[in-house]
Amino acid sequence: MTGHRTFALGDVTLQSGTVLKDAQLVYQTYGSLNEASDNAVLIPTFYTGDHVRNEFYFGPGRAIDPGRHFVVSINLFGNRLSSSPSNTAAPQDGPRFPHTSFHDNVACQHRLLTEELGVKRLKLVTGWSMGACQSFQWGAQFPGMVDAILPFCGSAKTAPHNIVFLEGVKAALCADQNWNGGDYSTKPVAGLKAFGRVYAGWAFSQTWYRERHYRALGFETPEDLLVDWEHDHVDNWDPNNLFHKLHTWQAGDISANETYGGDIAKALGAIKAKAIVMPASTDLYFPPEDSVIEVSHMPNAELRVFDTVWGHCCASGNNEPAFHRFFDEAAAELLAD
Amino acid sequence: MTGHRTFALGDVTLQSGTVLKDAQLVYQTYGSLNEASDNAVLIPTFYTGDHVRNEFYFGPGRAIDPGRHFVVSINLFGNRLSSSPSNTAAPQDGPRFPHTSFHDNVACQHRLLTEELGVKRLKLVTGWSMGACQSFQWGAQFPGMVDAILPFCGSAKTAPHNIVFLEGVKAALCADQNWNGGDYSTKPVAGLKAFGRVYAGWAFSQTWYRERHYRALGFETPEDLLVDWEHDHVDNWDPNNLFHKLHTWQAGDISANETYGGDIAKALGAIKAKAIVMPASTDLYFPPEDSVIEVSHMPNAELRVFDTVWGHCCASGNNEPAFHRFFDEAAAELLAD
Repeated sequence: MTGHRTFALGDVTLQSGTVLKDAQLVYQTYGSLNEASDNAVLIPTFYTGDHVRNEFYFGPGRAIDPGRHFVVSINLFGNRLSSSPSNTAAPQDGPRFPHTSFHDNVACQHRLLTEELGVKRLKLVTGWSMGACQSFQWGAQFPGMVDAILPFCGSAKTAPHNIVFLEGVKAALCADQNWNGGDYSTKPVAGLKAFGRVYAGWAFSQTWYRERHYRALGFETPEDLLVDWEHDHVDNWDPNNLFHKLHTWQAGDISANETYGGDIAKALGAIKAKAIVMPASTDLYFPPEDSVIEVSHMPNAELRVFDTVWGHCCASGNNEPAFHRFFDEAAAELLAD
Repeated sequence: MTGHRTFALGDVTLQSGTVLKDAQLVYQTYGSLNEASDNAVLIPTFYTGDHVRNEFYFGPGRAIDPGRHFVVSINLFGNRLSSSPSNTAAPQDGPRFPHTSFHDNVACQHRLLTEELGVKRLKLVTGWSMGACQSFQWGAQFPGMVDAILPFCGSAKTAPHNIVFLEGVKAALCADQNWNGGDYSTKPVAGLKAFGRVYAGWAFSQTWYRERHYRALGFETPEDLLVDWEHDHVDNWDPNNLFHKLHTWQAGDISANETYGGDIAKALGAIKAKAIVMPASTDLYFPPEDSVIEVSHMPNAELRVFDTVWGHCCASGNNEPAFHRFFDEAAAELLAD
């Protein structure tokens, strides 16, 4: 992993009132800001994402093209690169790392863009999943600065069922006595495996499993996929980081702040940016029915459902090339002006 | 719980070749067999069901009416009443209780009906969830004996995604070190809680949670429901029983026997019974798309989707009165001749 940079935020007072000490955002840029300063595209990261995994959403010859756009990819707090339970010094280490909200993330991203990178306007904010949630957040938190948003497979306010399914994922980890509320001496391997195994049921659609699309990912059987997800969670993820980001996700709500006072219709109505909201037809986390309601409150938004059997993970990596064509078409429309 | 009886099967050679010692089926009957012996209706039980919870599917003045029908409700192996890990003597106790299949259940139910109750024909076999799976099983295993089947929210062969989501539920329990492969000295309370918490995400639809239908069940918040499910699993369910029945469910396949040799189209094609297959539109375990395929192989079947936001649990207890009206209409049609 090369080319990324770190922006030192100093001590940051979070929405909760807690001060996060010596906070930092890790980010990477591609292309350059033009003289008019009107070609910046922001892509926040997703749950198990980082700036490298965001590279699937742009490239030479694509709708978002570093040859024409100044692409900024910023890592979410808790993703192990930006300030996280795993990389923060005591007394804010591990389970003592304070909760961060999407509002906190976006406020800090705003500082990075304006103080460090000289970005005054964002031509587009787009992202997958928790990256989509941050796109909505940007639209409501800095409505005067964002020309367009393209959230895919995400929501402006985390839906009750989404919270419930994530409770199940958390419970699987917590069932492991080694977890010990995050203060573990022995890594909660069984809990991390269970976490991955529960998650895999939500990530793809019922039809996807029936039609054996896991073969396209190199797995012979569903069990092979489950074992791979177990290993991924044990080998690559710090459990306190996983927990921290789940809280960010579960608390997602663009209206949970002084500006909107919990009025989600008001917050959605304040998103002036031109928007294409793109749920996936079989997404079990963010079903299109939820997006329909959110779009109905947005003054300048279009709902565009991506029809797929891949469920939430249609947009992960290069899983489904058809998704990238569909996405590029929408991004090109929003970037056309 | 009164009125139920026990049928002693003696030693039963299971499909696996293992002998289950001193096996027994617990059942209850309602009404009486008529002289022509053509009014028997069989209702096998569901995953966390028993014959008492089956009483929601019939009653005086309903389509299935003990005043006219001889209703037989038989408990599934592993449900704590019929032979189960929790009530079987060593050396077949707890995790050593041998796997039983739907084929084993139906073979033993057949003995109970013919040897003990004098039933020669079944006018209808119906059930919810694993009860639906057994209805399909009856249709394929004893095609000459069954006039009609009405499986609701179930399948003839457990779908890959269904297996995967149940793997997640199992993993949540296994993450608790106290579980110890079923040989526990301390009850795996954390694992049982996690089991219930993961399960709750699958049981109702996304829209059901969004529209707050949990209030109809007496819960103020989704978290109240999750806590209730935790308690239910800790207080009411033996973890080895839960595990045993999950295996039965996951291995569900009406073609997994010598008669059909794994050819599911052949097995479905052999179901001569008149059938109404009734998935729920938002069922996350048994989506209607899966039922469409199964029905396409059945010579005498109609697909009838119940439109609901209640997901799989539309048919649990008295959750949704509209379901019972829809169900009764179909049952009345099948029982009309």
